This record gives sequence, C-alpha cells and structure tokens, in this order.
Amino acid sequence: MSTDDNNKTVYVLEDTCSVSDVLPGRMYKGTVQGFAAFGTFVYLNANIKGLIHKTKALTIHKENKPIIVLVSNIRNNGNIDLEEVVLADYSLQPIHCKRRTVLLGDLKTKVGRRVVVECEIAQIKQTSGPTIFTLVDATGTENAAGFIEAGKRAFPEANQGDIVRITGEVMQRGGQVQIEIDTLKVLSQEEADEVKKRLDEALNERAEPVDIPFLIESEVLERLRPEIRKIARLIRRAVFTAQPILLRHHADADGVCSAVAIEQAVIGLINDSGGDYDSDYFLFKRSPSKAPFYEIEDVVRDLDYATRDNARFGQKMPMILLTDNGSTEEDIPSMRFARTYGMPIIVFDHHHPDEIVDQYLEAHVNPYHVDGDYGITAGMLGTEIARLIHPPVEEKIRHIPAIAGVGDRSEAPERYQYLELVKNEFDEETCKKIALAIDYLQFYLRFNDGRELVRDLLFLNDNNARSQQLMDLLVEEANLMIDEQMRTCFPHLERSVLPNGAHLIQIDVEIHAHKFTFPPPGKTSGEIHDRICKEYQGGAVVTLGYGPDFIVLRSKGVLMNIPQMVRELRDELPGAGVNGGGHLVVGSIKFVEGMRNEVLVNLVKKIAEFALESQ
Amino acid sequence: MSTDDNNKTVYVLEDTCSVSDVLPGRMYKGTVQGFAAFGTFVYLNANIKGLIHKTKALTIHKENKPIIVLVSNIRNNGNIDLEEVVLADYSLQPIHCKRRTVLLGDLKTKVGRRVVVECEIAQIKQTSGPTIFTLVDATGTENAAGFIEAGKRAFPEANQGDIVRITGEVMQRGGQVQIEIDTLKVLSQEEADEVKKRLDEALNERAEPVDIPFLIESEVLERLRPEIRKIARLIRRAVFTAQPILLRHHADADGVCSAVAIEQAVIGLINDSGGDYDSDYFLFKRSPSKAPFYEIEDVVRDLDYATRDNARFGQKMPMILLTDNGSTEEDIPSMRFARTYGMPIIVFDHHHPDEIVDQYLEAHVNPYHVDGDYGITAGMLGTEIARLIHPPVEEKIRHIPAIAGVGDRSEAPERYQYLELVKNEFDEETCKKIALAIDYLQFYLRFNDGRELVRDLLFLNDNNARSQQLMDLLVEEANLMIDEQMRTCFPHLERSVLPNGAHLIQIDVEIHAHKFTFPPPGKTSGEIHDRICKEYQGGAVVTLGYGPDFIVLRSKGVLMNIPQMVRELRDELPGAGVNGGGHLVVGSIKFVEGMRNEVLVNLVKKIAEFALESQ
Amino acid sequence: MSTDDNNKTVYVLEDTCSVSDVLPGRMYKGTVQGFAAFGTFVYLNANIKGLIHKTKALTIHKENKPIIVLVSNIRNNGNIDLEEVVLADYSLQPIHCKRRTVLLGDLKTKVGRRVVVECEIAQIKQTSGPTIFTLVDATGTENAAGFIEAGKRAFPEANQGDIVRITGEVMQRGGQVQIEIDTLKVLSQEEADEVKKRLDEALNERAEPVDIPFLIESEVLERLRPEIRKIARLIRRAVFTAQPILLRHHADADGVCSAVAIEQAVIGLINDSGGDYDSDYFLFKRSPSKAPFYEIEDVVRDLDYATRDNARFGQKMPMILLTDNGSTEEDIPSMRFARTYGMPIIVFDHHHPDEIVDQYLEAHVNPYHVDGDYGITAGMLGTEIARLIHPPVEEKIRHIPAIAGVGDRSEAPERYQYLELVKNEFDEETCKKIALAIDYLQFYLRFNDGRELVRDLLFLNDNNARSQQLMDLLVEEANLMIDEQMRTCFPHLERSVLPNGAHLIQIDVEIHAHKFTFPPPGKTSGEIHDRICKEYQGGAVVTLGYGPDFIVLRSKGVLMNIPQMVRELRDELPGAGVNGGGHLVVGSIKFVEGMRNEVLVNLVKKIAEFALESQ
Repeated sequence: MSTDDNNKTVYVLEDTCSVSDVLPGRMYKGTVQGFAAFGTFVYLNANIKGLIHKTKALTIHKENKPIIVLVSNIRNNGNIDLEEVVLADYSLQPIHCKRRTVLLGDLKTKVGRRVVVECEIAQIKQTSGPTIFTLVDATGTENAAGFIEAGKRAFPEANQGDIVRITGEVMQRGGQVQIEIDTLKVLSQEEADEVKKRLDEALNERAEPVDIPFLIESEVLERLRPEIRKIARLIRRAVFTAQPILLRHHADADGVCSAVAIEQAVIGLINDSGGDYDSDYFLFKRSPSKAPFYEIEDVVRDLDYATRDNARFGQKMPMILLTDNGSTEEDIPSMRFARTYGMPIIVFDHHHPDEIVDQYLEAHVNPYHVDGDYGITAGMLGTEIARLIHPPVEEKIRHIPAIAGVGDRSEAPERYQYLELVKNEFDEETCKKIALAIDYLQFYLRFNDGRELVRDLLFLNDNNARSQQLMDLLVEEANLMIDEQMRTCFPHLERSVLPNGAHLIQIDVEIHAHKFTFPPPGKTSGEIHDRICKEYQGGAVVTLGYGPDFIVLRSKGVLMNIPQMVRELRDELPGAGVNGGGHLVVGSIKFVEGMRNEVLVNLVKKIAEFALESQ
Repeated sequence: MSTDDNNKTVYVLEDTCSVSDVLPGRMYKGTVQGFAAFGTFVYLNANIKGLIHKTKALTIHKENKPIIVLVSNIRNNGNIDLEEVVLADYSLQPIHCKRRTVLLGDLKTKVGRRVVVECEIAQIKQTSGPTIFTLVDATGTENAAGFIEAGKRAFPEANQGDIVRITGEVMQRGGQVQIEIDTLKVLSQEEADEVKKRLDEALNERAEPVDIPFLIESEVLERLRPEIRKIARLIRRAVFTAQPILLRHHADADGVCSAVAIEQAVIGLINDSGGDYDSDYFLFKRSPSKAPFYEIEDVVRDLDYATRDNARFGQKMPMILLTDNGSTEEDIPSMRFARTYGMPIIVFDHHHPDEIVDQYLEAHVNPYHVDGDYGITAGMLGTEIARLIHPPVEEKIRHIPAIAGVGDRSEAPERYQYLELVKNEFDEETCKKIALAIDYLQFYLRFNDGRELVRDLLFLNDNNARSQQLMDLLVEEANLMIDEQMRTCFPHLERSVLPNGAHLIQIDVEIHAHKFTFPPPGKTSGEIHDRICKEYQGGAVVTLGYGPDFIVLRSKGVLMNIPQMVRELRDELPGAGVNGGGHLVVGSIKFVEGMRNEVLVNLVKKIAEFALESQ
Repeated sequence: MSTDDNNKTVYVLEDTCSVSDVLPGRMYKGTVQGFAAFGTFVYLNANIKGLIHKTKALTIHKENKPIIVLVSNIRNNGNIDLEEVVLADYSLQPIHCKRRTVLLGDLKTKVGRRVVVECEIAQIKQTSGPTIFTLVDATGTENAAGFIEAGKRAFPEANQGDIVRITGEVMQRGGQVQIEIDTLKVLSQEEADEVKKRLDEALNERAEPVDIPFLIESEVLERLRPEIRKIARLIRRAVFTAQPILLRHHADADGVCSAVAIEQAVIGLINDSGGDYDSDYFLFKRSPSKAPFYEIEDVVRDLDYATRDNARFGQKMPMILLTDNGSTEEDIPSMRFARTYGMPIIVFDHHHPDEIVDQYLEAHVNPYHVDGDYGITAGMLGTEIARLIHPPVEEKIRHIPAIAGVGDRSEAPERYQYLELVKNEFDEETCKKIALAIDYLQFYLRFNDGRELVRDLLFLNDNNARSQQLMDLLVEEANLMIDEQMRTCFPHLERSVLPNGAHLIQIDVEIHAHKFTFPPPGKTSGEIHDRICKEYQGGAVVTLGYGPDFIVLRSKGVLMNIPQMVRELRDELPGAGVNGGGHLVVGSIKFVEGMRNEVLVNLVKKIAEFALESQ
C-alpha cells in the first residue's frame, strides 16, 4: 500500500514484544529477513515475523535492510500480513513490552515457550559445553544456558551481579527447567536501577519473616526482636538470591547448638525453595572455629576457598555468619579482610560486645545491646532466628535452646523457660548430658563440623534410639576421662589463701595433666574449679590453670575484672606480650613463655586486691 | 459368555505374573483399562492386558473398574482374548508367581525384557535426575532407576536395607545394565523374612571361601583355620552386598603388609564381581592408624565420613577391619562407638589379646587364642585370609608374609617357611630391605595410605625394575638417617649396671636426638638397643628412650613384665597419670611431664628386681 | 575382463589410503564384501569399496575371500567401477599412504570425515563408558574414544607413551572435537622411532620460544640466556604434550613472585593451545614448600598424588619445576626419589648452587653459574622465563621482578632497572608493601597456594581497587604485628661486644617472642637485626635468634662464613647433630635441644674470630 495519509508514527517493537503486542493498522519498522516465491518475510523484532505478499511490495527488497510496513491483518494462526509503506517523513516510537516479562517462579508453567525474563545474574559457570547462568528474581532462582562454542564463555559482556534481560525458550532437562538463551542484554544503568529497585523491594518483601511469638516470654528477646528479624530477613534473602552462606561458630556446646539450629533452617529453606539437587551442600557450610574469635587464619582459608569458587565456578562471594563469636574487637582484623572482598557479615553472639565491631556488620544481635547478658546464650538466639528463617523447622529444634542454656551455664530466667518447654522429652539432666557429649565429640572432631554425628547427638535424625545410645556412650567416656584427669591433677594442686580471703588454687596443666586429650586445659581448669568450689562450699575461690604461655582463670565470689588486669599487666610488664581477656570473672591470659613467673606473681597480687562478693 | 456353571473360582494375578502364567479356560479378576472401537481392554495385572471383543461384553464398562473375565484364548503373538463373566457368587484365589523372579546375576541376558527381581536395597542415591537403587541378591549387584520427578526421591517408602520386589524393564545404558523401575514393593515382614532367609543362605553359600591349604604347614594356622575362613567369608559377603570396607592397620611394615594383601584381594574380588567402574575406589579404603590401637579420634573421623556418605549418597555403613591392631582393651571405646552405628568389626592381629574385646567383634583371628604367639604376624594372617577372599591374588602376594615376618622380627618357625617359599625371588636380605623401606616411606606418608607407592615397594605393580630402584633408594636414605641419628645419640647414652646384672641404657630422645624426622623415638630407641646388645654380646640389656612424657622400653635377657610395672606405677604414683603397656619385654609408658623423674626412678627400681633369663 | 597382458603388478592399499590414492587402470588386491542384484562389492582396504558389475565377474565370489580387480573407472561421486582379473602369476606391491595422516591441529576442519592420525598417547582414561585416549602430535592435543564394552578398557595393548596410528571418524561432541576410533595400531619399534623422531623435531620446533630481548639490560641474564630459553622450551613442550606441571617454590615473596609469573604463562599457554575446558586446573599445580628446599615429605606427597592420578586417570607423571629452591645438595634425596619415577626436574634459583645437583636436572638456571649472584632473584628469572613461555603474558607480569627484587633485598643493578621499568605504576614503596603483604598472607595460607588471593595481591585480577585495598590492609596488619613482636622482644635482647668489635645481639625467640604468629622466628630475628643495625649505624652487628633447637643468624659487616662454621661445629661437637647453612652471612643452624648451650658458646667464639669488613 502506498500511503500519503497523515499518520506519520512508525512503531519499533522491542525484542521483548510478542505477537499480541502488534496492532493491525499500525506501521512498524522491520527488517527484511528473506524471500519466498510469494513475497518477502520481514522481522518486526527478533521474534516476530510477517509477510509482505508480492502484490503488496513497493520497492526492491534487500536482505537485512530496514523497511517500513503496515500490519494489515493478524490471522488466527498468528501469521501477520504486511503491506510495504514508503514514507518521506515520519517519527519512530519504540514499544516497550515489559509486562511480558515472565517471573522465574512461573517458569515451570512455560515449558516449550519463548519467554523474556529480567533478573540478576547470581552465578556464571562455564562448563565443557554451554555457559550456565544462574538467574535470580524476586520469585525464584533458575538456570539459563548460553552457547557460543563448547567450553567458551557465552555472552562475555555479562558479569555476575549484572541485571539482564534474557529471551529464550524454556526447556525441561531431566525434569529441571532451564532457559536456552537467544538474546541476553545487560541493562543500561538506568534500566538496571529500575529493575534492581523493583527486584529489591520484591525480594525484601519475600524475605520478610513471618510474625510469630518467641518460644518463651522474655523482655530481653522482645527488645532484640527488630534485629533478630533483620538477621532472619538477610539470611532468607541470601538463600533466595543463591548467595552461599558460611557459618562460623565457637566449637563448644552453645556455639554448636546455635549453628545447628541455623543449619536446619537454612537447609530446609534451600530445599523448599527448589534449588538444584544437592545445592544445600554447595550453598551452606558450617565451620567450627579454632579460637573463640574469627582468626586471621580462618578468614584467610575462607577467602581462599571463596575466591577460588568465584573464579572457577562463578559462585557469589558468601555471606558470613558468626555465632557465639564475633562481638569483640579481636574479630576486627578478620572482618576487615572479609569486607575487602565485599562479604557481608552478620553476628549473633552473647559475649560482651565491643561497639567498634558494628561498623563492619550488616546486623548484630547481642543481649548486652538491650541490657541483657550472656545468660541469653547464642543457642537461644540461633534457635529463635532459625524459626523466623524457616518456620517448619521449629518442631525439630525447640529443645536446642535448653541444651545451649545448660551447656553454657546460663542462669538467666530464659534458661528455665526453655527447659520447661521441653521437659517431657528433654529434662535438665538429659540436656546436660547432650551438652557434655557435644563437647566431647567436638574435641575429637577438631574443626570438622561432624554434620551427621552432631545431628544424631541433637536428636535431629529421627532415630531416637541411636541418638540416646550415642549420647550415653559419649557421656560415659567423657566422664571416665574427666575422672582420670582429675585423679591426675588433684595431687598437684597448690592451695593458698589470699589476703582478701579468697582460696587460690594453682596448677600447671601442662606438666601435671594429660595433654592433647579430653578434657583440654580450659575444661580441665573449670572442672577443678567446680570441684574445689564444692569443697569450700560458699567460700570465694580463684583457680588458675597455667601452661608455659597461658593462664586459664576461673573464679567465684571475687569481684574480679580480668580485662582490666590484662591491660595493667600489659603496661607493667613490657616484654611479656600479655594479651587475652574474656568475661569479668572467667577468662584466659596469654604471654611469652619466658615471662610466666612475672605474670603469675603479679596476677596473683592483683587478684588479692579485689573485694569479695558479699555473701 | 454368560456363565452359570459351577466353577466359581476367580483368580487374581499378582503383578509378578506374566502371560505364561495365564491359563485359558480360567476366570480372572481384571480392571478395565480403556476402550477401542472393537472392544474393551482389561488389565489382568499391572503388566498383562487382554481384550473383550465387543461381542463378548455383557455390561457397560467403566474405566478402572473391576471386571471378571474368562480367558478364551491366548494367541501366538501373546494377545489374550477375554469374555466377560458375570458371577453372583465366587471365591477369589491369588496366583503367586514367584518362580518368575529373575536373579540379578542373570540380568545381562534379559536386556529389553520386563523382569521381576526380589532383593535387598544396598544403597539409595538421589541424583539430579532419577533415584538410583543399588540392589543385591545372592547372585550379584545391579542398579535400578526410579523416576518420579527430577531430583526428587522416587519410592520414598523404601529404605536402605529393605527387602523389595521390583518390576521393570532391563535397559542397557552405555553398556551398563540397569532396571527401569515400574513398580517397587517393600515386602511385608513375613515375605521379607522368607526372601531374606533365602538370600542369606545363598549369599553365605556364595561367600563361602574355597578349601585350599595354607601356603605353609603350621599347626597354629591350622587351629586358626575356622576363624580365618569365617573372616574371609564375612569379607566376601560384604563385597557381594556392596557394603563398603574400611581397613585400619598399624602403620608399620607388618601392618602394611597385612593390609595390602587384603587390599589386593578385595579390589580383585570387587572388580571380578562386576561392580560399577571405579567402585573399588568407593567400596574399599585402607587407612594407617596413628596409634597402635583404634583411637577415638580415628573412629570419630571414620564415622563422620561414613554417616555423611550414608546421608548424602545412601551408602551402607562400612564394615571395619582392624589388623595388627584391635586385640586389646585400648580399642574398646572406639569399638563401642562403631557398634552404636551398627558397623561390624573384624580383627586379625597378633598382639596379646584381651578377652573383653570379643564381645564387640564379628570375628577375631589371633594366634594367642590357639597357643600361638606374635611370631605369626599380622602380615602372615592377612595374606592367608586374602588368598581365601580371592584365590587368584595368591601369585602376587605370596612373598608378603616373608616381608612381614622379618619386619616384625618374628622368630616363629612359620617365618622361615614363608622365607623358604619365595627365596628365589625374595631372599631374607631383600625382605629386610623392603620392610625397612616401608617403615621409612610410611613415616613420610604419615597417615596416608600411599597406595601406588606402597604397591611399588611390595613389587605388586608389574614394574620390578622400578620397584627395585625405589627399594634401593629408600633403604639407602633410611640407613643414612639412622646412622646420623645414632651418631648424634651415642655420645649421650647414660650407661649403668643394675643390681640384677642387667646393663641399663638411658637416653633422653627428646633433647639428644633429632626430632620430627626418621627414625622416630621408638625406632631410635630400638636401634640403640640393637647396637648395644651387639656390644654387650650375650649380656642382659634394658634400653630406656625417654621424652618429656613417655618412655620407650626395649629389653633383652630380663624376665620383665611391662604391663605389670605399669599397673604398679599407676597405683604407687597417684598424680603421675601413668598408662601404656605393650608386650612383656617391649613397650612404652606414658605419664604427665611433671612426674617424669619419679616414674623413671621407680621404673628402674622395678626393672632391677626382675630376674635375668638363664643363658 | 580377462587379461593376459604382461602387467603383473597387483597393488595392495593400506588402510590409511583413501579413494584419491586409487589409480584407474591399476590392479588391486581386494576382499569380497557382499552381493547385490547387479554385482559384487569389493573392499580395496578397510575404507574403500568398489563394485564389480555382474557382467565383469569371472568367477564365483565368496564373502571375505581375496580377489584381484582392475579399476576401470572412478566416477565423479567417488564410486569405483571394478573388473575382475584372474592372474596366474603376479607380484604384490603395498601402497603406503602416509601423506594422508591428518595433524591433530587440523582435526577441527575434518568433522564428519574419516581420518588417520599418528601420534603419542599422552593419557588413557577409562570412563564408565568408552576409554578416552588423549593424543599428542606436533600440532596439538585431542581426544579419541575407543569402545569395546562399557567400563572396559578398549585397545588394552596400547599404553601411555606409545606411538600409535589411529583411524576413525571425527565427531563433534558438544563442540569438542573427538575421534571415534575404528582401528588403533601400536607402531612397531621401527615405525615408532621414525614417527617419534619426526614428532620430536616438530615439537621442539613448536616449543622453541620466540627471540625477544629481556625486559632489562643485564650481562648476567645474557649469559643465562641459552639455559633460560631451554627451560622455556621444555615447559612449552610439556604443555604441548599434555604433561602435568608441578611447580614447587619457596614460600616467601621472591619465591611466590617467580612461581606466579610462571603460573600466569603456563595457564595462558594451556588455554591458548586449546586444551579441554578446565584442564589448566588439572595440568598445572603450584605448591609452596615448607622448607627452603625440596623435602622428602613434599616429594612423597607429590609422588603419592602423581602415581594415583597415573593409575586411576592415566595421567602422565608430572614435570617438576623448582624455583627459589632446588640448587643445593639438600634437595638431592628428593630429586633421586623423583628420578626413580622418571619425573624430569627443572630448577631456576638464585641460591648458591652445589654442582652435584646438576646430574639430576634437565635444566638449571642460576646466576652463580655465570658469575652472577643472588641479586638476580628467582622472581626475576621466573618472569623472564614466563615471557618466553607465553609472550602475551608480559604486559601483566612486568612489575613482578621489581617486587621480587625488593622482597629479597637484592642489591644488584638489575633490581633498579626492573624498578625503573614500572615506576609509574609501582614505585619502590609499593613494591615493598606488596612483598610484605605476600609474606604476611603466605604465613596464614601456610602451604596452600592461595591462588586468587595472591593474584589479587599481585594486581593480576584486573581489579586494582580491590588489590590496593587488600595490600593496604595486609600491610597495616603486618606492621601492627611486627611492632607488637618488637615491643615484646626488645626488653629481652642480650647485647655484648665481641673481641673483633662486632656487636652481638642474642635473644631466645622461643620464650621471649610470640609464637605461632606473624612474624615467625626467622623474620622476627631479621627485623630485630635491621632495627639494631640502624641503632649502631655503621657498626658491625651479628644477631642470633635462637630457639630450643635452632639459631637464626643475621649479620652485617662481619666477614662470616656460616657453612664453614656449621661444618666445624659438626666435627667439634659430636652428638650435637649440627646441620644447616644458608648464605655466607645469613643462615640458620639446627641441632639437638640438649646441646644448645654448647652450640651457642662455640658459635659465638667462631663468629668473634672473623674479621670485620673494612668500612
């Protein structure tokens, strides 16, 4: 059709548009695709083709050349009849077809169809065949395959973290849904920002935890609620965006309890949100820490693995969770290291926090922030967070806070409520046994997580008979070894009475106790202390278990301040290299071997100056 | 056909029945499957279909509804002609078709056919596609694939260890035979017991080792024969039922010899019984042990891996073999731990056994049980067991007992017979060299098995030139290092003569010997002792190599009883934490560092009280 | 055609011949393949078929029987017309068609065609399906698949390292080219030698590095040029022949620099020469060494892995590269071990070389060989070699020698040239920072290579902002810890003046310094020494940092000879087990703990006897 009417608008269809976006009677800019005996095929965009019958052609057509056409008819079968148009003067108007974007969560219903998705690239993994892009949007995670040549990176312009628009066909591969990419476009800053904002909002909404009460009534917990919810939201978001999670925890019963509660919830959420098979093993890792803080050596190892996985498998850098650790300034060097690599850090801990750490954290739950104390243990916090991450996990883990509480000798009222909650299945005696068994097992696991064994010990594997048997065995062995250690130590205790009236017990646990075996020096000192306290019932007792370059302090009834003594010793004894700390009345001190006597003598003097608790 | 005759029995075909179980003239209960222009299709069971021609129909048929039919004819092509029957009164009689069960060993001949198998599930492995069930019956092991949805567990009602009946088609996948499962039924207790019993008997029969003489004539071995056969049978059974085997052994030449002989046999048997490619790497693991017993730390690591493999890959919990270890009460805590997880334990050892261990063992070969002694070394026992596990292995391993014998300084007559057997290829000098080379290599391997290197050293890799060169090199290096150690130690020896006339040699091997290098303290003490014995030719000699918290004892010509001294020291020195032991005249003692002098002084006193051997 | 002319030569076509080798008019010996209505098909070799029309047949044909035919015509479509010939007397003449051999580098252009290749087998890997042969010729590396039965070894007569002739079809599998093997023939010694010679020559030619100038002008480097080129050629050859490379290096900044330069080049070359995807991870491994030499423990681990990979995956035994290590006799035991397994060893080092090592090496670059010294550091050598291995790498690594030079405190003129070269991007201060940061990072990496982290620190990952941030962080932390160590150590320094006028500084770094932390004893002693030298500006200083069984020596201004002192102490103090060494004026000494005082006293006496440098 030759036209000289006044309608001078020519539309340009974006690749995201489909046939249903085409309106008969409108003019479109197209591209000559090819020729048939009866006419010329014209692409209106990458996906929509129409035909100019030879009787409707006005000019000589050349392949790949632009052409203006009028849509005269769209047939029922989707075929589009075109007429060529020659215009002297016209204006182009792009047609955006954003509403056609399919959500990843709906992809399963689109098998065999061509779709457009807008999403973030969470991972880019090169295989010996295609390049696999893991996509994330507000509704889910799916894979898309790009192919240019075997083993060669498809769409090298796209990087992890980019916001992209992808068109392709939805395929079912061994039951797994996947997009075979036709076009991939990294969105411009402007477009990306818009999509990102939309995605962010939707993800945040999806990640928002349910609104449920805590397992117990606790004013401290209530005051922590906003931050607890924040952590749950951040973790849920990480799961929804295929970000790996690395959970580091103190290697004692409370730390294990907290970490395992989170492990149960995160793995449950990963599996429920339909990741690839086995992805829980790649996306979640639990690691007990050697030290009671996040050591440089640990963060170096974590970063070494994370950067390798990132380089080789295109995995996101992980989110770091620290529990029963992470609140004190000793953690700062590692946190700075992690921050250099953009790894977000979240802490839920019950050690006395140093404010300075907060600048490195995305979120930080600590009872001291709200006038609580260490009696709200990490295992209690972890369990409450876990319930918000994945509510169905509650039934399995509701006994965990009670174990954590007795394990860490909490005297907070919360401990008793958590015990009350599960008393029919797990009485206090049983909880103590489980806590002791975890300590014993973890000692021999060293810094492996012992995934299934620990689950068994916590009665999480639906085999209560085996759990019971395992617990009984470990408790029996642990007690045998503690008794042997006490039998060996007690003849060597040096007992004295300090000027302030406190009983002082000293022992060299390096040469007068079994080494490299259970119980280790800290627990050995604690066990001695407990037995001595019973002996001097009601009296003030300070126990010092020392080795060549350390002293473990346990005390009762003395108004001590260990961090203050450490600071003083450090100043008074240059060249002793004193450091350490802990709680006010329980802690440990390190120094160089050659200065042990000086440190011991001065420490004892200082201890003698503290007042006793009034009885 | 309408019928009112008196034959009121209606048969019900189990799913295991096939067309050949159908008898013309009989009535069967079927299910309407669907309709064609010419009639109604009826299922007689899940697999057998017949047709009621429309002229033979009596009622209106509804899909999936039961119907009674008479089989009027079975055509040559297997088509079944049915006539509908309407009965007022009849009795149902099930047809069992057990004889149709195919044995897994015959599966290769059934490719493309539908089969029924009855077997035990040995492993359930979820893949990103189907669920793979490893099946075991008396004749072999094969895989079956169940599919419900990609990455989802098919037949979740079935668990590892269940006895099941499976119907499906036999497929060839890349040459590997596999059943594609149609139906899987976990058998009822009663049925399962029957199948299990049959399977057990057949497996035991298949697992029964051949009846061949030992390599040498030995009364002690003859008395051990029943238990040796039992161990061979249990190991063969484990292989036939796809149970992983974990072999822990003492990390010295004798222990390595015993373990490698078994390794050769088990891997040979796995490969010969046609497991999956590479399955020998998954189903057999050899691990040298740190301590001369099965430590808690080792069992915790073993259990950690085993429970993970069980949870993630559905692998059976392994069978534990202990050799050159495992006979003494020090092993009991680990054995109890293993028992909690249902892992069977088998021991073949030549250390003086404590009767108490036997309650934890499936089988226990120990020469002391039959008035033999440590002169029948673990390597001899392991080799004889290996020959029964897989007879073709004999040719390769017949020299191993000789190496083990000289390595452990056996003075039993069996040592000389084993040497005689291979004297043409491996004379005594060569055997000694190999034993020394193994000790040296294992020292640097630490607790890795060094699979191929050790095979090379034992001349098992069909490359004798390389084996010879390796042996010569290691022997040369080992001797250089021993000489350097002796050069360093000898100036520090404290020599004295005890009241009983024995020469006492003492040395602090911690401060007067090279540390963390070959030879380690035990071997260093032994080497000193040997050289001193030569010096005081014929005299009684006691050598004590001590460190901060241990003493290694070597003695000659003194009627010592080390275990008894350990018990006494333990009682007499509370707070010394004494433990340890070993053989009567060779062993080691551990204690806490701060009590070394007391232990040494008292130990020497006790040694001085023993009588000397009459010369 | 019946023929009685005089042409009695009958040709026999080898399987390597193709249709274009067939000449019309000639007679060939063929084999009857089968029959059609119109005639008889005859194979002229395994791949070429022709037809005897029934009108041209003279005898009764039997399948698989030989027959003589005359080629009457070759049609345009490749069809061959034959006439049967009956000859009483004739001679056979084989036709070799070697020129038909396809080069692996051209395989991509032959997809879908049958080819013949002559090559070396570099790897034989059994899969659960076919057997995969990795082939190497002068032009490239490709895979060929042989199939006999799933999981069974095809062509068991062929071994790794054999020269073979393979015919098969070129397939494209997921874009990867692969030969599906029809025939595989292990060539006879004679044929193999010829092929091997040709292959060798071509490989050497291909492996010959480009002729480019060094980055700087250096007479020492020029004199090293032939050996540097040789190393580059050998490494390139290893890459071209799919031989794995294991690079062991000293775990300090210079060693890391040298090794990473090589790593960049080798990985670049592997990827550019089109190995399988991910093969750089299998074919190249970088391992920091614990000791400043190649320890037995390291070579045992390396051999353990290499022999396993060889046995299980058919991989070649690796080539060993040693850098910043490997020049001294301490390396010999490990080199002998490696040689037993036929692993070639290459060294580029700047430690004073012992001539005796050269008999174990394929090539050895060391500045001392050409009157240079340690000032030409390993990192400089490694970088120059890397440029020859893979020239495009230059742009990325040209700053590495400067870092290595300042890291190792080179005072050679080359250091200043390398610094000058990159001064705009990396000034001396920055180079020092990077070197310190590497030392600090490597301390915590222990003996992991920290691949991506180290690349980041060396500004190789195209993320300069992150590299800068990482460097700054590590430098800050390192300096904090050095300062803390100095604060602890300095009060314990024992200062004295020796008879020769040198200041002697002694400190027990075991008991008067922090242990198991950064800086370790060697660096702690060096740092003390540096600070003391500043204090006694211009004076001669000797610093001894000792522990229970070692002394670290640093000196300035004293004409010491540490190796000589070690030899003397060894002779004079039998039972002290003295060993060690290093450079003339910097080094360390080891001994047994119980002899520390004797060693210290005598060492100080000896030091006092050396003259001071004239100022």
